[in-house]
Amino acid sequence: MTRVVVTVMPREGVLDPQGQAVQISLDRLGFGHVDNLRIGKRIELDIPGDDPEGQARTMCEALLANPLIEDFTIAVDG
Amino acid sequence: MTRVVVTVMPREGVLDPQGQAVQISLDRLGFGHVDNLRIGKRIELDIPGDDPEGQARTMCEALLANPLIEDFTIAVDG
Repeated sequence: MTRVVVTVMPREGVLDPQGQAVQISLDRLGFGHVDNLRIGKRIELDIPGDDPEGQARTMCEALLANPLIEDFTIAVDG
Repeated sequence: MTRVVVTVMPREGVLDPQGQAVQISLDRLGFGHVDNLRIGKRIELDIPGDDPEGQARTMCEALLANPLIEDFTIAVDG
């Protein structure tokens, strides 16, 4: 069983409405100097068997990420 | 300007409905052996000025994380 961390972020140049909303809220809280805020997903999961990284890539391509608007990275623990 | 990465994850023992939904979908795609899937947020932002880590902590406590159900970690680049 391998612990795998998948990170899914909005692609460079793609609108990030969630990030924009948070940046507006931070502005109201006095953090108007914050810049380039982007929000993505962090997915942690246990994958048994061979090639957990390859399995995670298949999951990303099939379900976890939308390749039109998101990039993903895969990190394997230990 | 310091690039800061905030990770917000559901607390241990707290229900993660988004993670459960994804795990069910993975099961249907043939990845029923995947376990302990949890989904959280990855927030990347530029923070100018002194003590970017302390500023990020204040943002987490005020807005970015819900302390009842989420834990956060802060990583400062460079």
